[in-house]
Amino acid sequence: MKCCLLAFDIGGTKISAAILEWPTETVQTLTFQKLERVYSPPDADAKSDLRTILGLSHTILTTHKPLAIGVSFGGPVDWTTNTVRLSHHIPGWEDIHLGDILEAELGVPVSVDNDANVAALGEYRFGAAKGSSSMMYITISTGVGGGFVLDNKIWHGADGMAGEIGHMVVDPSGPLCLCGKKGCVERMASGPYMAEDARRTLELDSRQGLIIRKIISGHLDKINGQVISQASSQGDELATELMFRSAWALGVGIGNVVNLVNPQLIVLGGGVTKSGQNWWRIIRETARQVALPQISVQIVPAALGDDSPLWGALALAETAISS
Amino acid sequence: MKCCLLAFDIGGTKISAAILEWPTETVQTLTFQKLERVYSPPDADAKSDLRTILGLSHTILTTHKPLAIGVSFGGPVDWTTNTVRLSHHIPGWEDIHLGDILEAELGVPVSVDNDANVAALGEYRFGAAKGSSSMMYITISTGVGGGFVLDNKIWHGADGMAGEIGHMVVDPSGPLCLCGKKGCVERMASGPYMAEDARRTLELDSRQGLIIRKIISGHLDKINGQVISQASSQGDELATELMFRSAWALGVGIGNVVNLVNPQLIVLGGGVTKSGQNWWRIIRETARQVALPQISVQIVPAALGDDSPLWGALALAETAISS
Repeated sequence: MKCCLLAFDIGGTKISAAILEWPTETVQTLTFQKLERVYSPPDADAKSDLRTILGLSHTILTTHKPLAIGVSFGGPVDWTTNTVRLSHHIPGWEDIHLGDILEAELGVPVSVDNDANVAALGEYRFGAAKGSSSMMYITISTGVGGGFVLDNKIWHGADGMAGEIGHMVVDPSGPLCLCGKKGCVERMASGPYMAEDARRTLELDSRQGLIIRKIISGHLDKINGQVISQASSQGDELATELMFRSAWALGVGIGNVVNLVNPQLIVLGGGVTKSGQNWWRIIRETARQVALPQISVQIVPAALGDDSPLWGALALAETAISS
Repeated sequence: MKCCLLAFDIGGTKISAAILEWPTETVQTLTFQKLERVYSPPDADAKSDLRTILGLSHTILTTHKPLAIGVSFGGPVDWTTNTVRLSHHIPGWEDIHLGDILEAELGVPVSVDNDANVAALGEYRFGAAKGSSSMMYITISTGVGGGFVLDNKIWHGADGMAGEIGHMVVDPSGPLCLCGKKGCVERMASGPYMAEDARRTLELDSRQGLIIRKIISGHLDKINGQVISQASSQGDELATELMFRSAWALGVGIGNVVNLVNPQLIVLGGGVTKSGQNWWRIIRETARQVALPQISVQIVPAALGDDSPLWGALALAETAISS
């Protein structure tokens, strides 16, 4: 049996497992030795998820022996005890000692962290920030979240809450966020909020958003971030304005991060980052304007796509061996 | 001869030196074994400053032998080479290898850093943040600056520029800052800018700021941060509005820091922090509103007053021994 690192990525709709043979000289090609994915049924709960996880570990370990396990969990985690606090998508995950469960089952060290932190570590160890001295990863999709890798380690902060750029206020006279504040980055930059703002305008003013209307054939409930991005690239004014505001808010947020923490690299991932060159240009220009001139600002796309957390979980397993 | 740590605090108007006997079991009373201060003459330059520094080291070391030297410098420093980049107040400090000069003279390891970082370390090691796991120090006086201590060390960032909360944008429709942006924390919270805004209003509208006018006997050029604070405490409406805006901007900035970096403690120092309970209350309330509910927000006054950098330089010397 060859030795390997074992990684899990536990999301709201699917669970993935992968292994990487270890020790390896360098990771030349970004491919897992084995990869398995299972979609969670609509009535999934923590118990069925746990059965899936243990099942996956048996399927994937037929020819390999794990040295350590890393887990990315899509929800708040107490990383100091490898305990899941809860899932916003799947019931029953409250205070589940996932690290202990996996350690009892497989007899090797386990490290569990939340997906934004783990994705940051993945991009740092294997992806777009490989070789950098410090980085922040920001994911912009249905929400806006982030994680820091400083001094070769995930920076968690005193309450394990560091990286919450989504609720940084960048415009106190901006639109109201669900969190109760105005002008949070997430409120202005994430897909669902852009869709909501477009829908409201279209309901009020029949002359606006003609290209958006065409794409969704008039079904306002079909507007999402992707539709806005598509309409903007076809010249829709309302969509372009919303995309500009998204990129501007993120640009201010990133400029503030750069002034405050001065990481070498900012890596952006998530669906909204596929919104085209214009969106990227506005972010880069805005962040450059907000950052002090003595500070370098480097903003790059994530290299590992949807698998940043799975690669990060391998990196987490790697650190679990040595600790 | 007893062994000691030697510290320098090199500011724009005065240079201080202090020693602390070492090793010491615990620092019980916050007093230096010896302390010397020299005010720089108006025509001071780097050469005369260096003569003062070497002179001070001889005066203060008559009965003690230094183990290491820590230096706080009031201006940008390359901490990796202990080199001063420049001083905004004293000419001739461009690219002075201060660490090398002191090491050649005194034969012990030297560590040099900028005053905001060193003050942060001082409050962390000896002051208000003693025993905390991570902290940010923010100084609010003629400018707004800051420094982080994370994981027991100053966090410098990739370009050595971390901690620049003064130029975080908190209100894009706010007043124009010298840096070219609108609504920076420094533009809204620091003393000279508050004074400038008050002066402008008083020039335009003779009915405003009656209490301010009384304090300065009508001499508008005498308005400064202290005057605004004093007038506000006596009920002047304009002054109170400016103090509110200062505290609000800082509160948003601190809330953003807390969401992003989640340090255990925020320590505030500098002249503007003496503006009374109301100013503190607004900061604390605003930061609490901006921070996510899961994150604890603890904001406390600096404990070492104007000597935070000098105590920090001792802590820097301490780290220089072990490295």
